[in-house]
This record gives sequence, structure tokens and C-alpha cells, in this order.
Amino acid sequence: MVDESRLAIHQVTLRDQWSFRECVEGLARHGVRQTAVWRDKLHEVGVEEGAKILCDNDMRVTGLSVGGLATSPDAVEWQAAVDDNRRVLEEAALIGADHVVTISGGLAADSTDLDGARERTLEALARMLRDTRGSGVKIGIEPLHPMMCANRAVLCTLEQANDWCDMLGDDESVGIVVDTYSVWWDPNMEREIEEAGSRICAFHVNDWLRDTRDLRLDRGMPGDGVIDIPAIRRAVERAGYHGACEVEIFSARNWWRRDPDEVVRIIKDRFRQHV
Amino acid sequence: MVDESRLAIHQVTLRDQWSFRECVEGLARHGVRQTAVWRDKLHEVGVEEGAKILCDNDMRVTGLSVGGLATSPDAVEWQAAVDDNRRVLEEAALIGADHVVTISGGLAADSTDLDGARERTLEALARMLRDTRGSGVKIGIEPLHPMMCANRAVLCTLEQANDWCDMLGDDESVGIVVDTYSVWWDPNMEREIEEAGSRICAFHVNDWLRDTRDLRLDRGMPGDGVIDIPAIRRAVERAGYHGACEVEIFSARNWWRRDPDEVVRIIKDRFRQHV
Repeated sequence: MVDESRLAIHQVTLRDQWSFRECVEGLARHGVRQTAVWRDKLHEVGVEEGAKILCDNDMRVTGLSVGGLATSPDAVEWQAAVDDNRRVLEEAALIGADHVVTISGGLAADSTDLDGARERTLEALARMLRDTRGSGVKIGIEPLHPMMCANRAVLCTLEQANDWCDMLGDDESVGIVVDTYSVWWDPNMEREIEEAGSRICAFHVNDWLRDTRDLRLDRGMPGDGVIDIPAIRRAVERAGYHGACEVEIFSARNWWRRDPDEVVRIIKDRFRQHV
Repeated sequence: MVDESRLAIHQVTLRDQWSFRECVEGLARHGVRQTAVWRDKLHEVGVEEGAKILCDNDMRVTGLSVGGLATSPDAVEWQAAVDDNRRVLEEAALIGADHVVTISGGLAADSTDLDGARERTLEALARMLRDTRGSGVKIGIEPLHPMMCANRAVLCTLEQANDWCDMLGDDESVGIVVDTYSVWWDPNMEREIEEAGSRICAFHVNDWLRDTRDLRLDRGMPGDGVIDIPAIRRAVERAGYHGACEVEIFSARNWWRRDPDEVVRIIKDRFRQHV
């Protein structure tokens, strides 16, 4: 069984119920001491105020979500994304985040150039690495499920994430985010988690629902789906990761509509049994 | 540009508009000489009558869809699936099909045992191989998109399909079906298509829509989505495959609601430009 002190709850899990302050105070009230911050929510209160709220509540910040999204073949758009990534790294440092959750972005409008999008993402990651060096904030690259390839993430697998880390060649400032939802189907999952080893900087948990109705916003609570989450947790532990297990659930039809205190209670309950 | 004589249209593309007979006669009327047969439709007319309709219309049959679906941990259910696969192979022989399109099946109800489901699928494929030897009908194993892993196919990638073919160890009776929709996102796609080589027994074409609304029944017409289909066609040609390019579109919200003659005309038009 997993140690309960490892529980983190990602702010996005309560996206529609709680403001930034309500979320931090609410999690603290329930004894949850770690969270990942959703950037849109942070901007609602401002970075300085957000940092103060986190500090006042003694809340540890795992990741700031999200950076990346730099695949555009348009040079001006691509540069704007790179510049925005510099800001997200600065914000992460100001709130004491361990890493920026970095997703690659999908294909630009009207583009079918997947190889090109992947090349531009790698170039953007190299820029982010230069910008973050010395700040103590890691770039946590997260492969998303292949069904997100067109719209959100041309980085689709752990194998590809490991290859990219090799190419980026920096073991200090780049890490890999393992999300159960994105990797559970992958025949190479165990091998690539082992390969990732000390690169693993975050472990996101949520479940795949059999009756998934939306490609992005219909993730399940641990225990409600088909993923053997404890088996994946044990694999990341064998690889050397013993940090936070972050419950992150995008759920427009269910969990975003429920009473937030009830959601947190259910998460704590499920965490014991299904993570 | 692709030779138009390579066009095949899978019956399922006109699932809701045409009966078995209407489909075979309709395709022939439009000069399409190859089709893949949807087993439910074949059963509507009966195998003998179906074979006669195909023969009368001088229609070549690529694949019979679908076989496989043998992942159950319940021994009786699993055996029933194996027995049914024997029948589908016999039916394929009777209608002169080149192969049975074989998908693995997903996880059984309440199961999270992905490894077990994969093992049982492999065992079922080994049985099918014994049953088909000498009949001239191939087992065409088709990896589906990873988003189908829970419900339809624990076989998710071309790499896994190649590994399974190695394990099955029969180059005569087992082949691989490459479907653009299932493989386009895969960073290892080109390498694994090359590895598949002469194993490739079918090439299915359809497109990934950016606004995909359903995980199974919302595929796109070539040209309406983000897949560089000609690049994948050239890859399978480099691997040695020069057979039919089969348009196969599951589309509950669009193509299954359109006039079938119009659909066939659009397919022929798109085939020239986008396959």
C-alpha cells in the first residue's frame, strides 16, 4: 500500500469548483500538503499573491501546468510560445515548483507535418533548458495519450520521451512525467519506465473509463476504470521514484460537477485502495 | 499518385445505407472491383448466397472482418471465441477472401489484467493458425489505435504485431493489417512498417479528424483530417506491399448518413488526391 503522505492533488481536478485560494486552503484543510498548480488559476490571483497563499498554507508545489505547446511552423508564433515558456519557468521559480509540466503541443492548423512538429518541439525544449538552467526548476516533459497527438501532444510515448531526453543531453534540468492514463496501454511501458529511471520527476494518477465519451475531459477516478495503477506505481518505484503520486482528473461530466470536499474525501479513500 | 485500380472499399463504410447485395452491386456499378466484407452483413444473406453475389459481380474480396476477440479469462467464453474463429476462417475460404481481419479484443468486463489478455490473444492466434493452415486464408492481425485498448484491441502497435508474428513463427499464414488511423501517431511507424515487410497483407486508409467525438465511430474521409496518408502508403510500398488500398470509414455522424452513391463518388475523388 502506498504511504498516504505521498498524495498530491492537482488543482485541475477541482477546476470548476474552487478558485486558486479555495483550492489551496481546501486541500490544506483536508490534510493534503502537496499540489500541482494550474496556470490559469494562478493567473486569476496573480503569481505573487498565489505564492503567498501557497506559503501561508505550507503547501508544497510539485508541478506548474503547463508549458511547452511550441509546434507552430510560423516563426513568429513559435517564438511567442518560446517566450511564454520563459515566463512559465519564472512563475514556477516564484511559487517554488519543482518542475513545469511540459506538453509538446499538437499539429498546427491545416498541418499534417508530424515530423516537423516534433522537430520544432525539440528545439523549443532546448531553448527552455537554456532558460531554466540554474533556477532549480525542471522541465518535466509529459507524453500524452496518442489520441491527443493531433491537438495537444505530438510527444506520444515514454520511449520517445526517453529518446528526447537523450538528445537534449541534460540530466539535471529535464525530467519525465509519467501519467497512468497516457501510458497504461503501451507494450513497452515497463521497459521505458525502467529506462527513464531517475528522470522521472512526477507520477500522475487517474483511470481510463470503459465508456470514455471525450478525448480530453473524461478521465476517471482511480478504481473506476481499467488501469492497474498500483502495478504502474510499483514500476516507477523500482525505477527509483518515490515522490508524490498526483491525482489529476479532467472530468467535465462528473468530478468537475461534484461537491469539492466530497471529491477530496473520495480521492483520499481511493488513494489507499487503488493507487 | 496511386493507381486507381488499387482502390478497395470496405463494406462497413456504407454500413447503414446498403445491404450486402446492394453494396456489392453498387461498388461494381461504380467500377470498384475489390471490397472487404463485414461479417454481420454477410450473415444477413448467408455465406453461400454472399459468395454467389460476389462471384456474379466479379468482386475480389480482400479481407473478411472480423475475427479474433479472444481475450476472456473465462475458459468457456475463450473456447467459444476460438470456435467462432474457426467458423470465420471457413467463411473466409468460402467467399474467397485473402485474409481474416483479426483484432485482438479488449479487456474482459471488470478485468485490469492487460498482460493476461495479451497472452490469451496470442494463444487464440496460435489456434487460428493451426485451423487455417492449407486453406489459403491468412490471419491478418491488425493493431488498433491505443484508445481502443480497453474495449477492442489489446494489440496496440505495429511493433507489438511484429513481435507477435515472430512468436507465432509462421510466415505463410499470418500477416499484418496496417491502418492509417491506428498507426499515424506512432514514432516507430516507419521502422515497424519496414520490419513488417512482406507480412503486410492489407492497407486500410481513413483520416483522423481534429474534432473526433467518438472513440470508435468517428473516422474521417481521406483529406478531411491530419494524417499524411500518401507518406504512409509510400512507406508500405517501400516495404514491398503493392496491393489494395482499402477505404474503411466508421462514421456514425457523417458518412453513414449520406447518399451511398455520393459517398462512393467522393471516395474515388479523394483517393486520387489524398491516398
